[in-house]
Amino acid sequence: MAQKSSVSKAADESSDIIKLPAPNQKGGMPLYETFLNRRTDRTFAPKELTDQQLSDLLWCANGINRADGKRTAPSARNAQEIDIYVFSAGGIFLYIPEKNVLERIAKEDRREEMSGQSKMIMEAPITLLFFANYEKMDKFSEEAREFYGATDAGFVSQNVYLYCAANKMSTVVMGAIERDPIRDMIGRDGKAILAQPVGFAK
Amino acid sequence: MAQKSSVSKAADESSDIIKLPAPNQKGGMPLYETFLNRRTDRTFAPKELTDQQLSDLLWCANGINRADGKRTAPSARNAQEIDIYVFSAGGIFLYIPEKNVLERIAKEDRREEMSGQSKMIMEAPITLLFFANYEKMDKFSEEAREFYGATDAGFVSQNVYLYCAANKMSTVVMGAIERDPIRDMIGRDGKAILAQPVGFAK
Repeated sequence: MAQKSSVSKAADESSDIIKLPAPNQKGGMPLYETFLNRRTDRTFAPKELTDQQLSDLLWCANGINRADGKRTAPSARNAQEIDIYVFSAGGIFLYIPEKNVLERIAKEDRREEMSGQSKMIMEAPITLLFFANYEKMDKFSEEAREFYGATDAGFVSQNVYLYCAANKMSTVVMGAIERDPIRDMIGRDGKAILAQPVGFAK
Repeated sequence: MAQKSSVSKAADESSDIIKLPAPNQKGGMPLYETFLNRRTDRTFAPKELTDQQLSDLLWCANGINRADGKRTAPSARNAQEIDIYVFSAGGIFLYIPEKNVLERIAKEDRREEMSGQSKMIMEAPITLLFFANYEKMDKFSEEAREFYGATDAGFVSQNVYLYCAANKMSTVVMGAIERDPIRDMIGRDGKAILAQPVGFAK
């Protein structure tokens, strides 16, 4: 039986740092076929991702793909301001690409508070949250932070769609989210841009 | 010798409708390797895309991948508001995914007016312009148009990056563009979000 993802375990079973296995960087579905399969699916079965799947997903989304620390997604002026948080039954976790780890920042299940349309979020095993970290955008005007925070989260979200398309997984991007409460949960200066539940179709 | 793209020909050599060959929907670089190769490259050799490459690029970017007309990129409330314009020495062309054609909307080379940083745009054989068409967003608030226009252009732009990564082509996304003059060139109600030159590295 496949190993379940560490992010769904109760907090007392593990430390606050989850080491992820090295992500796959070879193979995968051919690109044109991946585009042919790109779609939104709003149904989620009660099946979890393995830690390998979680590692692959996060690396595809916004991982480091070069020795100079650059990423699979571009960002305005290379600010690399989009942080990915994983929300699950086991709490809230920050993806740290430099170390390939997830750092638990909350032990409670906060998913119901993410959106007025939380049914999909509660059914999916995990929901990714793309957060524009304004500490990394201190040289941007307020207008530029709003604009590039949105475009840059779009790049990352599309990577998640393509990972899911290639791996027959289910996903939907959500813009109608509770931005201020989510920012308070995260506890940083910035903006919660998009949420994206990921799992397996029913 | 490879056939050059029709968009670089002088206007009097062709009609205002360029029929594209059917896009590739099979094969391509494996997805994980594509993500490993995802990068920005700002150098452009004086080499043009073929019509097949142009068709593949546009289909990957925001083409129709299902019988119900849905696209390779998502959009808020399925508005499908991101139109792609191709700017080249031969003028300005609107990609019409339903017909797999480019419609010429201007015969002049308007690339120098696109950005204060137009060197890359002038060197690249084509520049894609992602335009949020507000005629397709009439039920959105002004704030929502601004926000989702930006996220939705991000999805499309990332598809272009991945097409280029898989085909060893050069590309860079540009947010510092002349939005109002570009909107005037296009002649529709909406917002020019991002420009993205595409070509081959020097």
